[in-house]
Amino acid sequence: MESILIIDQKDGFGPEFSKLVSMMEYARATTIEEVKNLTVEELDFLYDEDANSIGMLLAHFAAVEKAYQIVTFENRDDLTDEEVASLNPGLDLGNPGQEQINGNSIDYYLNHLAEVRAVTIERFKALPDEWLFEQTPFWWNLQANNYFKWFHVFEDELNHRGQIRIIKKMIKKANKKR
Amino acid sequence: MESILIIDQKDGFGPEFSKLVSMMEYARATTIEEVKNLTVEELDFLYDEDANSIGMLLAHFAAVEKAYQIVTFENRDDLTDEEVASLNPGLDLGNPGQEQINGNSIDYYLNHLAEVRAVTIERFKALPDEWLFEQTPFWWNLQANNYFKWFHVFEDELNHRGQIRIIKKMIKKANKKR
Repeated sequence: MESILIIDQKDGFGPEFSKLVSMMEYARATTIEEVKNLTVEELDFLYDEDANSIGMLLAHFAAVEKAYQIVTFENRDDLTDEEVASLNPGLDLGNPGQEQINGNSIDYYLNHLAEVRAVTIERFKALPDEWLFEQTPFWWNLQANNYFKWFHVFEDELNHRGQIRIIKKMIKKANKKR
Repeated sequence: MESILIIDQKDGFGPEFSKLVSMMEYARATTIEEVKNLTVEELDFLYDEDANSIGMLLAHFAAVEKAYQIVTFENRDDLTDEEVASLNPGLDLGNPGQEQINGNSIDYYLNHLAEVRAVTIERFKALPDEWLFEQTPFWWNLQANNYFKWFHVFEDELNHRGQIRIIKKMIKKANKKR
């Protein structure tokens, strides 16, 4: 069995993509581990009126990854308004996210995440490692390279995975109080 | 000015350490951005009786990094009981963490984090890139390499940075209710 605790060469990827994909896959495996047994009710739980549910965060991961597919694979500065609209409410969440992202099973979210990831992986396999080091102006007019942009995709997931862990604790407390 | 949005070669490090340190420094910069203006009261805020305060999470980052210095730089399977005791309550948090980690200013936490990080960076500069790919048995008896172990140090920080962001929102709500 291939260990997920190794960041090194992976079949089918250049050496640089291999390490990036190792980290992305570890992040995703730990997300799945946290959420795989959650019920629809747990996925929809809102700990307060401004909260993101776990389902909303899972939809967000897929929307962010799609946004970065567009930005990096099409070498764009930004998304068009139409693209933002099509990625919402997952991208920006908020009230529209609360209203529209609910009632789905865990399989719905995980299947969508897997579909989006498959596109990323297919493109990564076809790109040369040098692509990761290409720079463009990005946030705050600083230069960013493609490695950073894809690092950001998984670092955002890890950030929200931490939140998922807190929300799960709150669900347990809420269930105890009943 | 050096952009923190680039994962690439850094002065004084091998090519592999350069990318790892780029990611570690971005994670740390975003942590500092979240916490730098917090008061002692905010750093000590507990949203419920089992919660970690933001101060506790900052102490945890330093303890985890010190633990991985021991494990990786000394090529160890595990920490001794004495080492665990000296890294606690930051390492395991819980009730001892709540009781003992409080009353400190943000400078206290950030200075401690910077001291620990300086040791890591000094050691990284002296190690060959190949060291990152050395494997030992680790969690669940799977093989892990040093790259993964240091990835884990920053992915744990990112996970808790997400929690810090939620806790800050709760502090704002608690302040409004007063």
